[in-house]
Amino acid sequence: MARVTILGAGDMGTALLTPLHAGGHELRLWGTARDAGIIDALERGDPHPRLSVAAPPGVGFFRDEEVGAALDGADIVVIAITSNAIRPVMARLASELGNPRAIVVVGKGFDSGPGGDEILLLPHVIGEFSRAPVVAVGGPAIAKEVAIGTPTAATFGSDDAGALAYSHEVFSTAVYYIETTDDVAGLEVAAAMKNAYGVAIGIADGIEKRTGLPHANMRAALFPHAVAEMGLLAESLGGRRETVAGLSGAGDLQVTVTSGRNRLLGERIGMGLSGAEAFRELTAAGTTTEGYLATEYGYRLAQRAHPDLPVDRHFPLLDALYRILYEDAPATEALWGAVTNRPVFE
Amino acid sequence: MARVTILGAGDMGTALLTPLHAGGHELRLWGTARDAGIIDALERGDPHPRLSVAAPPGVGFFRDEEVGAALDGADIVVIAITSNAIRPVMARLASELGNPRAIVVVGKGFDSGPGGDEILLLPHVIGEFSRAPVVAVGGPAIAKEVAIGTPTAATFGSDDAGALAYSHEVFSTAVYYIETTDDVAGLEVAAAMKNAYGVAIGIADGIEKRTGLPHANMRAALFPHAVAEMGLLAESLGGRRETVAGLSGAGDLQVTVTSGRNRLLGERIGMGLSGAEAFRELTAAGTTTEGYLATEYGYRLAQRAHPDLPVDRHFPLLDALYRILYEDAPATEALWGAVTNRPVFE
Repeated sequence: MARVTILGAGDMGTALLTPLHAGGHELRLWGTARDAGIIDALERGDPHPRLSVAAPPGVGFFRDEEVGAALDGADIVVIAITSNAIRPVMARLASELGNPRAIVVVGKGFDSGPGGDEILLLPHVIGEFSRAPVVAVGGPAIAKEVAIGTPTAATFGSDDAGALAYSHEVFSTAVYYIETTDDVAGLEVAAAMKNAYGVAIGIADGIEKRTGLPHANMRAALFPHAVAEMGLLAESLGGRRETVAGLSGAGDLQVTVTSGRNRLLGERIGMGLSGAEAFRELTAAGTTTEGYLATEYGYRLAQRAHPDLPVDRHFPLLDALYRILYEDAPATEALWGAVTNRPVFE
Repeated sequence: MARVTILGAGDMGTALLTPLHAGGHELRLWGTARDAGIIDALERGDPHPRLSVAAPPGVGFFRDEEVGAALDGADIVVIAITSNAIRPVMARLASELGNPRAIVVVGKGFDSGPGGDEILLLPHVIGEFSRAPVVAVGGPAIAKEVAIGTPTAATFGSDDAGALAYSHEVFSTAVYYIETTDDVAGLEVAAAMKNAYGVAIGIADGIEKRTGLPHANMRAALFPHAVAEMGLLAESLGGRRETVAGLSGAGDLQVTVTSGRNRLLGERIGMGLSGAEAFRELTAAGTTTEGYLATEYGYRLAQRAHPDLPVDRHFPLLDALYRILYEDAPATEALWGAVTNRPVFE
């Protein structure tokens, strides 16, 4: 039995209570000030407002100011906070983190560093604040399904073999299957960028709705280009293409384009909104679409990977998506141009 | 302008009239005896009964007995006949094929040879009957969308560079984009086997319907395993994994699991029917699901690839699918066992 403290009562933080409870562990869930209503609901036995699933019995609930008690003596600390809040939250908690056997990070995205102009992987950000070994979690895993316990295969990655084995042991159940990898960069780039490419493919859904004509062939044409570009981006940070071709890349993109939130951003663009309008509309409705920011990070990463060449030379789909989201390029033309002018597969 | 004769008035044979008409070619469509009703309808200007799309103007229609006239002077002959009818139809037509610059085959599957116990690729079967160069067509392309002209990227493959370039020139339009490859084995194995793996992934859809619980994570867990196993099968016939990771493999599987017919076979199994019952039910309703037979061919191919080892050692998902379809193995257990016991990605 392990003592596991989950920081963040969002969808995935709360969902992970299900496999951890099935494994018989001692569980604590800490909510930020923003999560106060969720913690109240779960403590009363009510369902999580977005997941519509109640917490399993026996979980200890902790509020914003109780973070010290929540972390006390934890074997594993799970960081389940949105990517752009990880740096400030870590800065605040660093002195109370103690010495867990693993810090498990489920956020997906990049961090721009203290100066705001870098492109850092989240495990590295956590490494700035703690010496505990970090384990990154990749997909494909829709939180709702983790919470209700339908079969899920996730990917855990770390360069610390001991922390990886320990996390694997603590989180694994018959229906929450874990593949492990030492390719943290491949895993993290795929986890972040599948949200961006999910927006691109979701645009075909919106074109379909707007025109009344099926566009499944277009979606399918974009799909392998997205996987190939994610592989190249991963390589530029030292990751491996094989990781991206597997569960945490192709698998996660597949679930994203059928069931994810980022798909919705693309859909609205395909229906006629500009990238900025679609992002504002979804954000106002409380829907987080990390793919919007991930596109900008990915674009800068692509520039950095080949500083001497225009991005569309190596990453035509990402270039098209960036122009659609940030420069109001016409969506169909930009996407189809990426498929037809510069085939990634020859 | 090329003279193009399409043999077979099924979905894809008829759909290809759209890009070919856009390219300004002289078109002839020949129907087998079974297609007589379709040819009648199209000639009257009525829509194709399954595609719900009429033929473009100017097409010449030919009935079963008029095959000689249909083929006379053709620059390109398109073989758009279901895979298991290709051998008898070719045997019948061989002497009338003439000397086209390319024979383009759009059927997907394998042939069992004259003796019934081989595993042959369709381009090789055509090569038994004609010396004209053969070009194979892979996906991802749902016929209905080709017919209505929404953006589609297909893959054409041949070891004859001249025939490949000529077919590329004749079929390409602004919305029917063609990638070319010399990897015929990779293309053909992916084209055939994506129907089999589409059945496996479709089973998750059926479990979802039966239980009322979403199973998107399960679908996504199966997806990259399917692509990896298709790559290994292609390699065993001299094909390349990269081909399978691209449009004609991962791309075609993606469209198959969201929009294909083979998905429906899996769905019925996931809802509780046996493999044989589900196949009989769909066949009786006129729905062709090539994935049923392709699973058996693929299973034998896997045995041949590693004759000294059980199939589940290298192809756990194909082994599970074979046992589900032909030996009534319990679907969820077999599929999840394939994902969890022997990860393809480590």
